[in-house]
Amino acid sequence: MFNDGTTIRVEVFLLKEICICPRLSKAMDLLGKRWTALILYQLLEGPQRFNEIESSLPISGRLLSERLKELEKEDIVERKVYSEVPVRVEYSLTEKGRALEVTIREIEKWSKEWIN
Amino acid sequence: MFNDGTTIRVEVFLLKEICICPRLSKAMDLLGKRWTALILYQLLEGPQRFNEIESSLPISGRLLSERLKELEKEDIVERKVYSEVPVRVEYSLTEKGRALEVTIREIEKWSKEWIN
Repeated sequence: MFNDGTTIRVEVFLLKEICICPRLSKAMDLLGKRWTALILYQLLEGPQRFNEIESSLPISGRLLSERLKELEKEDIVERKVYSEVPVRVEYSLTEKGRALEVTIREIEKWSKEWIN
Repeated sequence: MFNDGTTIRVEVFLLKEICICPRLSKAMDLLGKRWTALILYQLLEGPQRFNEIESSLPISGRLLSERLKELEKEDIVERKVYSEVPVRVEYSLTEKGRALEVTIREIEKWSKEWIN
């Protein structure tokens, strides 16, 4: 439209303005899914078997399995299989998952103070 | 079932075990809703008019209006009407909303580091 580069500058400005959106939005899509934060909260205590997580939350096994798979796919949760008899499967937070600890603790703090 | 109070003690234990759930769950239901965190992130900058928020986010006016109403209902966002000509309406964070700043900044930090 303009030969002096005005259009380009405007576009760069707009991109800068909304640059936080895709990442923050993606993060919230991940964390905001029902039960996800509670599963991560549970895993902050350390590696746990499927049954341990299941019995600590009022969630169905099917849904927990679905959420864990999503979190594995996002490299937030790690699934380790130990070749014992019977076989032992444990879920734990990856480095990316552990990096969420401050966030989850902050939400916990806020919810304790502000949610009845 | 037992006359010695065993049942009651077991129930208290179970309630204690899952006591974080309802609050953390409610907090995540609130914050995890699509666009909510981004609207709050935007309002961290200070009071803003509807159009300002709308132009800073790729969100429809209808949806923004819906989210703001939900946040008002939860006492996280405040809507102030200034009787000027033309009338000025501004949205800002309440004390409960401002208490979310650390949380939102932490999610922002995490998303910058871990989300591509």
